[in-house]
Amino acid sequence: MFADIRKLKQFKAEKMTKVGLVDSPRMFCDLYCLLPGQEQRVHAHADSDKVYYVLEGAPTIVIGDEERRLAPGGIAHAAPGIRHGVRNDSDTGAVCLVFMTPGP
Amino acid sequence: MFADIRKLKQFKAEKMTKVGLVDSPRMFCDLYCLLPGQEQRVHAHADSDKVYYVLEGAPTIVIGDEERRLAPGGIAHAAPGIRHGVRNDSDTGAVCLVFMTPGP
Repeated sequence: MFADIRKLKQFKAEKMTKVGLVDSPRMFCDLYCLLPGQEQRVHAHADSDKVYYVLEGAPTIVIGDEERRLAPGGIAHAAPGIRHGVRNDSDTGAVCLVFMTPGP
Repeated sequence: MFADIRKLKQFKAEKMTKVGLVDSPRMFCDLYCLLPGQEQRVHAHADSDKVYYVLEGAPTIVIGDEERRLAPGGIAHAAPGIRHGVRNDSDTGAVCLVFMTPGP
């Protein structure tokens, strides 16, 4: 599979948009596209790792008790059982590449 | 874990450089940094997915019988058993974010 992420991102007014890129028994890889004010609420997965890599914008990423507003090039990892989430408190769209292994 | 990939990339004259970002029983996430002429030879993993995401440069990525020179924003996925590799045939450095699940 080859794809160009620049052509796949999409935003929706209702809520954060997930664009599926890879889905296998061992992992998923999605784009998360967040307009200002949108979020994925903080949650945890008992047996999965999750990685966020920021492609565009300035999303705030929560990992455990820490949260940081990241820029493109920023990466964050939540080990199993660690609470995590992302919200867009900025005034421009934000796009993250997200990996979870294994998927839900 | 939070990190800034722009500060972590590094190139070495001898061979492609891998910079470890995440290493868990379920996955690894590395930066692959390739100077012109460097490569990771084509190989396959029987039970793992691998994903390449191009951050910088114009690396040529091989997936199965297909190869493409990608630009930043390009992504490629090799399912288990599918041969894959990356080489830098261009005249500038190339950087990819690479996920493998599970790791070797």
